[in-house]
Amino acid sequence: MYKQKKYLDNQPLVDAIRRFHEALIIAGIGGPIAGERILIGDSLGRVTSEAVIAKISSPFYHSAAMDGVAVHCVDTFGAAETRPKRLTMPDNAVFVDTGDPMPDGYDGVIMIEDVEKISESEIEILKPATPWQHVRLVGEDIVATELIIPENTIVRPVDMAAMIASGHTSVMVRRQPVVSIIPTGTELVESGRELKKGDIIDFNSVMLFAMAAECGAHGVRKNIVKDDAASLGKTILEAHAESEIVVINAGSSAGREDFTADVIAELGDVVVHGVNIKPGKPVILGIVRGKPVIGIPGYPVSAALTFNLFVKPLIYSFLGITPPEPERVAAKLSRQVASSLGQEEFIRVKLGRVGDNLLVTPVSRGAGALMSLVRADGIIRVPAENEGIAAGREVLVELLRPSRDIENTIVCIGSHDNALDVLGNFLKKKHAQFSLSSAHVGSMGGLLALKRGEAHLAGVHLLDEETGEYNVGYIKKMLPDAGTVLVNLVYRTQGFIVAKSNPKSVNGFEDLTRVDVTFVNRQAGAGTRLLTDLNLRRLNIDPRNVKGYDHEEFTHMAVAAAVLSGTADIGLGVLSAAHALGLDFVPMAQERYDLAIPTRFYDTPMLQALLSIIRDDEVFRNQIVSMGGYDVSDMGKIMAML
Amino acid sequence: MYKQKKYLDNQPLVDAIRRFHEALIIAGIGGPIAGERILIGDSLGRVTSEAVIAKISSPFYHSAAMDGVAVHCVDTFGAAETRPKRLTMPDNAVFVDTGDPMPDGYDGVIMIEDVEKISESEIEILKPATPWQHVRLVGEDIVATELIIPENTIVRPVDMAAMIASGHTSVMVRRQPVVSIIPTGTELVESGRELKKGDIIDFNSVMLFAMAAECGAHGVRKNIVKDDAASLGKTILEAHAESEIVVINAGSSAGREDFTADVIAELGDVVVHGVNIKPGKPVILGIVRGKPVIGIPGYPVSAALTFNLFVKPLIYSFLGITPPEPERVAAKLSRQVASSLGQEEFIRVKLGRVGDNLLVTPVSRGAGALMSLVRADGIIRVPAENEGIAAGREVLVELLRPSRDIENTIVCIGSHDNALDVLGNFLKKKHAQFSLSSAHVGSMGGLLALKRGEAHLAGVHLLDEETGEYNVGYIKKMLPDAGTVLVNLVYRTQGFIVAKSNPKSVNGFEDLTRVDVTFVNRQAGAGTRLLTDLNLRRLNIDPRNVKGYDHEEFTHMAVAAAVLSGTADIGLGVLSAAHALGLDFVPMAQERYDLAIPTRFYDTPMLQALLSIIRDDEVFRNQIVSMGGYDVSDMGKIMAML
Repeated sequence: MYKQKKYLDNQPLVDAIRRFHEALIIAGIGGPIAGERILIGDSLGRVTSEAVIAKISSPFYHSAAMDGVAVHCVDTFGAAETRPKRLTMPDNAVFVDTGDPMPDGYDGVIMIEDVEKISESEIEILKPATPWQHVRLVGEDIVATELIIPENTIVRPVDMAAMIASGHTSVMVRRQPVVSIIPTGTELVESGRELKKGDIIDFNSVMLFAMAAECGAHGVRKNIVKDDAASLGKTILEAHAESEIVVINAGSSAGREDFTADVIAELGDVVVHGVNIKPGKPVILGIVRGKPVIGIPGYPVSAALTFNLFVKPLIYSFLGITPPEPERVAAKLSRQVASSLGQEEFIRVKLGRVGDNLLVTPVSRGAGALMSLVRADGIIRVPAENEGIAAGREVLVELLRPSRDIENTIVCIGSHDNALDVLGNFLKKKHAQFSLSSAHVGSMGGLLALKRGEAHLAGVHLLDEETGEYNVGYIKKMLPDAGTVLVNLVYRTQGFIVAKSNPKSVNGFEDLTRVDVTFVNRQAGAGTRLLTDLNLRRLNIDPRNVKGYDHEEFTHMAVAAAVLSGTADIGLGVLSAAHALGLDFVPMAQERYDLAIPTRFYDTPMLQALLSIIRDDEVFRNQIVSMGGYDVSDMGKIMAML
Repeated sequence: MYKQKKYLDNQPLVDAIRRFHEALIIAGIGGPIAGERILIGDSLGRVTSEAVIAKISSPFYHSAAMDGVAVHCVDTFGAAETRPKRLTMPDNAVFVDTGDPMPDGYDGVIMIEDVEKISESEIEILKPATPWQHVRLVGEDIVATELIIPENTIVRPVDMAAMIASGHTSVMVRRQPVVSIIPTGTELVESGRELKKGDIIDFNSVMLFAMAAECGAHGVRKNIVKDDAASLGKTILEAHAESEIVVINAGSSAGREDFTADVIAELGDVVVHGVNIKPGKPVILGIVRGKPVIGIPGYPVSAALTFNLFVKPLIYSFLGITPPEPERVAAKLSRQVASSLGQEEFIRVKLGRVGDNLLVTPVSRGAGALMSLVRADGIIRVPAENEGIAAGREVLVELLRPSRDIENTIVCIGSHDNALDVLGNFLKKKHAQFSLSSAHVGSMGGLLALKRGEAHLAGVHLLDEETGEYNVGYIKKMLPDAGTVLVNLVYRTQGFIVAKSNPKSVNGFEDLTRVDVTFVNRQAGAGTRLLTDLNLRRLNIDPRNVKGYDHEEFTHMAVAAAVLSGTADIGLGVLSAAHALGLDFVPMAQERYDLAIPTRFYDTPMLQALLSIIRDDEVFRNQIVSMGGYDVSDMGKIMAML
């Protein structure tokens, strides 16, 4: 079958780009589109489609460049402080302010400081004037016929001023290419509609529409098209008539209802179907009657990436400008990245400046993980000929945020607590220049990150069984010489997160061995995992007898979500996570949750901004309390300096 | 008088900023303004005024992550390729595509590859399923209640998608602060009106309006206000009622009609009037009834600079975000910069990457020179405590264009010819990524720039009196070992540029000694100057007998403008300059105008793009011919390789 064959083509990215480029050239597509005349006041950010040439000079008359008197210079020769010369007004001298046009026949200005007023009709001057002194001459700024801005220039405010100053009221700019986005899929619904199981809210088309707008195109969202080849064909032709580029999302894969490629092939040519990139593989690059028609995959991360790779360059070509370069930085990989040989991979990453190190850490790689793209700081490319990149290697990162924002981000690695999300929002709210970036790897993972110099702070709740004290013992052991300040964030209640009304009546760790109870665990190294293991040990329960013990999640919310979704009956976590998802909670223990901060970062403005919220912000404190299960009596207090 | 006193305050920039900042705090001004609810589809680039929290999870139901069959995992245990297990449909197995919701009670998916269809109601599976395998779980991407984006976030396309995916249709964003711009001045007229001597087209208010829009504010241009205190006061109050910031342009200086400060002082407080910066000194920072009212100087360069310094930070503060950082590069000063001790100076500069050198060259410093700002690549700051900066020193340049554009700019230094402007526009038109930057310092200056490695090419027309040949002798002498390719651009006619109908009947160099004739000269080192001097020498004319011999201009157009404006009767230049300004022309000599290109730059893509236009572009050639006075028979030909 055609589409299967195409899909299996699986071309390397460079080949796909080259083949599509060649097909576009053969079809006569590309290069700047026609211009339209608009008012200069509306032209900010638009691209000139013609050179702008000065119609008039600026200034277009001689004018005084100083406050003083306009004179005939020949009358002034010989004047001096010791021998002032007398001039009569208005025959030989006329008072002028800066900017006033020079009276006809006058060819110089004497500054007001060098003039003595004798009477209403006479002055004395203390200095002679040389011809055209203190006069702003015609064309001093702009000479009629000179080039103001060339074609293919993005109009800035100062260009607008210069165009107006040179006698223009309107300017020829490129029409904004129209990019029509067609969302397809019987399962898609417009946002805001009542949802039922199986529905997918159409958010991709809004994202693609905004991406088009970002590059200066005019995005148009078409109505959602059901999975029906005839409707899709009709909508493509409709969009085709009114656009420069047609984008179809999605139906580009090889599933039962993916026939976008067939429809394009029927209307025109499918040049490429399937590119060996990850994510974004099932992209379709087609041409229908002289216009590019592109099938963008449905997973949001794939959609964003393939739009960037294949649609944006077309928009810029139509506008006659080169695409802006993304900001790039070199950074050190904090952990190994694996990748398939032969496939070019685009990996979302977080970046953190910790001391002298700029560290890059890969985040979730699922193409469906929209939030991973929202939270990513950048993208790294792993070329097709690599099987991965080793930890510690320097890589080039294409930034998704300004590098300054990354420099101003507090990197928090460690145990997860919902209070950290609230803290992050308060930091951004009160100190817009700073951000908090949290990675959830458990308390032990947080201390290891501090040890390796990869974090500014770690959230930790590690009970020392011997001393009964939280955190101090572990830090002494793992960071013996580092210098660490331990600041309390909260005391919090850990307990069982269970479905509404606790249908399985779970009340203690002994219930975990019941055959009708499925547990969801936290990952090794999490403080909550240690608490589970400690309790099982005390009760002499063999973990192998706990169903679901191997099902590990990385956050309290993920545990709660597992309970909510029915994949587990019970998990250990904090009250706020249960509350957030409307679940029930069986309290088991109170524990201390501290922030471990290396002394060398403690006094930085970033950390002090964060600590001031913890210590002084009543609203923050109240919001934490209102989440339930938190005791804030020691919030912000230094528990130890180690 | 109050305003005089204020003006004389002349505060250092840091003090002015501090005093204004303190006054704003006392008046309770600053910090984010209220939000408004808008549709997510309209939110691109806006700033969130509240954190966005997920309303629903995404996905909000379990769905298949593979094409295959949904099963009860417990039914599948024991299946193997050698021992397939048979399942009946739809009781024990249901076909699902990727994305389909999981049928109720089913807890795993077996990939289609591991399924054999036996009949309409029976399948065989070759592998067992582990619970929740190939299932996309509720909340896998977004968990209800989780933070999507914090407050004070600039909304990107991917954020829009995530907000919609998490159940939102609208979002709270900061209202765009309204910045009213009041143009004042009896001499101001709206662009497009019939102009008379003394009129100034109001272009500043359009520039300031666009600068406000660029930072995310809503700019409002008020009607032009005549120089009348009562009208100005009324308009300020009107604007005050409907804006967050009122900007008055201009009337901020100390001239007879400059009473903006008085009017502000009457309505509220003038906090600062006069800052020791250049340009921009007469700025007024005021507060009227709880809102900032700022008087911006009238010269366009001062207006742009002071708006950047004082208005932009207020806009960003109202939006709750930190101002974006301008791109900065370190570059080497190609010539000395003088500056007044005690005054902080902002100097417009051109930048050029020539070989390994990134060179920075100051451009015109007049505050009225709008085109100098249009053409500038960046700004350097000379601190108040410096008297200037020596040539060769490294300085930090705040860029006004992306650094990539600067890297892709051909630096042309040398003699001026109007054909270069046309060439620059054709280059931008055909190769949007490249630009041509021309500095006009004469032919000798151009060769010196090549010698110092400061230019990619020089336009030269230097007649060797001994050999009668153009350019070759001078290059051999000045660049003996450099390796230079000499490419012809045009032969051109030099002659006298005179007023329409040649009223003084000037026909030869001998006329330059007439007492009724004023000459305008070119600067030393210009090929045209050499031609003048050569002719004077041949006629044994002493330059001291030529009136205006010391009046030097740097371009043909400036010479023509001097004739047009009546400051001179005659100047030597090219026909196209006379044509452009509607002047008459008396041909005197034909000369060869070549481009001298160092061999090491000759084969770069930039230079080859330029040369391809000179050599192959008929339209370019015809346009040059149509300007008059040019012979293009050798255009693009290599005249010598030296």
